[in-house]
Amino acid sequence: MTAEQPPKTSPETETVAEIEARAAALDIEDAFPDENFTDVLLRLISEAIAEGDMARARELLLDQHYADAADILDRMQPDDRAQLVLALGKDIDPDILPALDEEVRDQVVGVLGVQGIAAAVEAMDSDDAVAVIEQLDDDERRRVIQALPAENRAVIEQALAYPEYSAGRMMQREMIAVPEFWTVGDTLKYIQTTADELPDEFYEVFVVDLRHHPIGRVSTARLLRAAPETPIREIVDADVEPVPAAMDREEVAMTFRDRDWVSAMVVDADGRLIGRITVDDIVDVIDEEAEDDMLRLGGVSDSDIFRAVWGTVRARFTWLLINLGTAMLAASVIGLFEGTIEKMVALAVLMPVVAGMGGNAGTQTLTVTVRALAMKELTPGNARRVIGKELAVGLTNGLVFACLAGTISYVWFGQATIGVVLGCAMVINLTIAALVGILVPLALDRFKVDPAVASGVFLTAITDSLGFFAFLGLATAFLL
Amino acid sequence: MTAEQPPKTSPETETVAEIEARAAALDIEDAFPDENFTDVLLRLISEAIAEGDMARARELLLDQHYADAADILDRMQPDDRAQLVLALGKDIDPDILPALDEEVRDQVVGVLGVQGIAAAVEAMDSDDAVAVIEQLDDDERRRVIQALPAENRAVIEQALAYPEYSAGRMMQREMIAVPEFWTVGDTLKYIQTTADELPDEFYEVFVVDLRHHPIGRVSTARLLRAAPETPIREIVDADVEPVPAAMDREEVAMTFRDRDWVSAMVVDADGRLIGRITVDDIVDVIDEEAEDDMLRLGGVSDSDIFRAVWGTVRARFTWLLINLGTAMLAASVIGLFEGTIEKMVALAVLMPVVAGMGGNAGTQTLTVTVRALAMKELTPGNARRVIGKELAVGLTNGLVFACLAGTISYVWFGQATIGVVLGCAMVINLTIAALVGILVPLALDRFKVDPAVASGVFLTAITDSLGFFAFLGLATAFLL
Repeated sequence: MTAEQPPKTSPETETVAEIEARAAALDIEDAFPDENFTDVLLRLISEAIAEGDMARARELLLDQHYADAADILDRMQPDDRAQLVLALGKDIDPDILPALDEEVRDQVVGVLGVQGIAAAVEAMDSDDAVAVIEQLDDDERRRVIQALPAENRAVIEQALAYPEYSAGRMMQREMIAVPEFWTVGDTLKYIQTTADELPDEFYEVFVVDLRHHPIGRVSTARLLRAAPETPIREIVDADVEPVPAAMDREEVAMTFRDRDWVSAMVVDADGRLIGRITVDDIVDVIDEEAEDDMLRLGGVSDSDIFRAVWGTVRARFTWLLINLGTAMLAASVIGLFEGTIEKMVALAVLMPVVAGMGGNAGTQTLTVTVRALAMKELTPGNARRVIGKELAVGLTNGLVFACLAGTISYVWFGQATIGVVLGCAMVINLTIAALVGILVPLALDRFKVDPAVASGVFLTAITDSLGFFAFLGLATAFLL
Repeated sequence: MTAEQPPKTSPETETVAEIEARAAALDIEDAFPDENFTDVLLRLISEAIAEGDMARARELLLDQHYADAADILDRMQPDDRAQLVLALGKDIDPDILPALDEEVRDQVVGVLGVQGIAAAVEAMDSDDAVAVIEQLDDDERRRVIQALPAENRAVIEQALAYPEYSAGRMMQREMIAVPEFWTVGDTLKYIQTTADELPDEFYEVFVVDLRHHPIGRVSTARLLRAAPETPIREIVDADVEPVPAAMDREEVAMTFRDRDWVSAMVVDADGRLIGRITVDDIVDVIDEEAEDDMLRLGGVSDSDIFRAVWGTVRARFTWLLINLGTAMLAASVIGLFEGTIEKMVALAVLMPVVAGMGGNAGTQTLTVTVRALAMKELTPGNARRVIGKELAVGLTNGLVFACLAGTISYVWFGQATIGVVLGCAMVINLTIAALVGILVPLALDRFKVDPAVASGVFLTAITDSLGFFAFLGLATAFLL
């Protein structure tokens, strides 16, 4: 099929090397206007699959770095992806699996089957293996674990015994730990002679006592500089706390960030060194945790940009349904004042202003609070002070915008009392919005509910309903 | 002052070591119910300052890791902070400065003065020095740079010549680069004998050709394992692209994340190796960029949780003012239909439901789009497909919620047409909301405006005004 087309002029006949050469010769944006390199590959692979040229599709994907290959698979149409994964079979790079989006990985796992997954998992570092296996459903998980050699099986089962999102789940078993009575020379010899069983890459050597409790760590840079006869004990950095395996991965990530670590020692409940966490995994955790908070505040559970239409509709449905509920609640509050609105339609014109401003001011407080809770900046110790501050901010903003909005409505409707009523409702709603914006996430956090998920619903329900109630209630009392 | 109080029973007389011992003996949450360790220190320092015992306040802060000390300074009351920084003077750990919140750093810089800052900056790595200096205002910056030794000055000025948030700004000059014709033995000797001029910590050695263009890199783990006579060329990992100094730091961060790098080689416009970026700084970048997007979507510019009331009010004012504008615009749309509402008050009850649902559905699309743009997942190459998908999702959700909300209003007001009108308005508004939610951030991104900052305003303005217009307009046409 491809041979029929004239060479050089059509991108369909180019090899990856030729594409890369063209991209390198020109600026990539000139070479492929409006497309980046991944887009081009994605298009070429789709075209190859459409033409039934699976060999070419395979070659295009296999030539890529695993991170790019995962990115391409993530973005493919589900049907194309299934065909390509089938064509790849056992040749799929095991490193691709942990880098895929969860949903895409499910599909790939389905295509590879239990034996295929087990073979891929066996070739992975223990942390990647756990990341892939923990996504499987119970039955698949059991079957994959059974298909593994006994040694891998024990490691995986031990990791799965720790809670989800804990240090124990994300750690790697592969590490270098040496006894404290060794010298630098002993350590170097150990690293050089046992290379097969030790990890390829490491940035620090951990030092343990006889009970296998960590004493501290020595960076590779320091090992390179030390004389061979130096006792390892003399150059150890003992000023680092190990990470308990049960610690939440978000807390681990914050410790890495604050301490500028590149790797951490993980210990079990008895304080024995059982693994390490490296910073490349922490980068992913920080990215994912921040993404989760941001998306949840926006009312979506995952990044569903490449999900199919129906899946996206279902994923966003719950949040919209809850919002329909709160909107109907707010509407029923307005319903209480139908008589008032009938007498004075201007109220219907202005009431969304009060509700909307409350929602916006509350969202500001809510966003800052959710972030501060995630960063552990907001704690029971300073909560009272911050609540007092947010209350003062809400009241001040309420007063400022009461004057502004009150004046506008006075000018608009030529009636001073309508401005005063609007202003008073604004002060009430913005003050309560500030309180709700901080108290609701604090309360949810205390009850171990993720404040990013549920706070927005409460906030909207209250700022809408209360906004309408305060404005229409005050109007009923003072304007009629 | 402290000596007058009975020992052991009051926490005010405890040393840091005693506090730590107490915390270690018990679970920290039992030892200090409702306070974490930072809270306790913060309280003790505040109390010491209130009692005028600056020596104790100093001691309490100086005993901490610089990251914890920065955290404590961030959270202190501004007056206390100024007093403490004055008392610390030159003893302040230079590492604290880059770790402080910007606003707090400004205050600390003010207290330390130009000479104090220059002395601190001189002791820092070049990336930290640049981070501190770039925050100063023009005049202070010039004076601090002049107060530096010529060598530091040149490095700082060169870094400042690169754009803000670029690789050139965040890189460190301190690195280890060796010529490609050296052996492992030559490299080790260089590292061991020139330790004073080389960085303390490094995870990779960079290999350059005669023109100082990078060939690739060798990890320290690999150096430890290689025989001394091995040519460095043989063990170099040449499969890593260098980072151009002009590259945006967000793009650098994504490359680190995808490639699992621990350090990157930075090259100038001529391709010469001029510095390195290490993963500990990337962790901060990912954290900050995600925080920025999240906060901006929530209508706040910074994490202002510890800012004073008036500063917070001013920081949040602009966004609320813009929202008042869009709310008034939406109100004026309602104003067009005063006559219709007068005849049928039920419309006033239901109209916020249409507007609110549009806002929520649009925010979902907007959030996902902003995140996908930040992750470079959404590109001109796939934009058309994603726009089509979001349109389909908006239409589907519109139909689903039209049925739901239409039925509820029919039951509520006992009139079928009111349900139909509400349903039609819902379909229109949710479809447009989906389009706005994706097109506005895409357009802003194309014009190099941060989509997280400005998209929300457009979205609310459109979903509110259009929601009211569609519902009340349809009602005027079909219900009266």
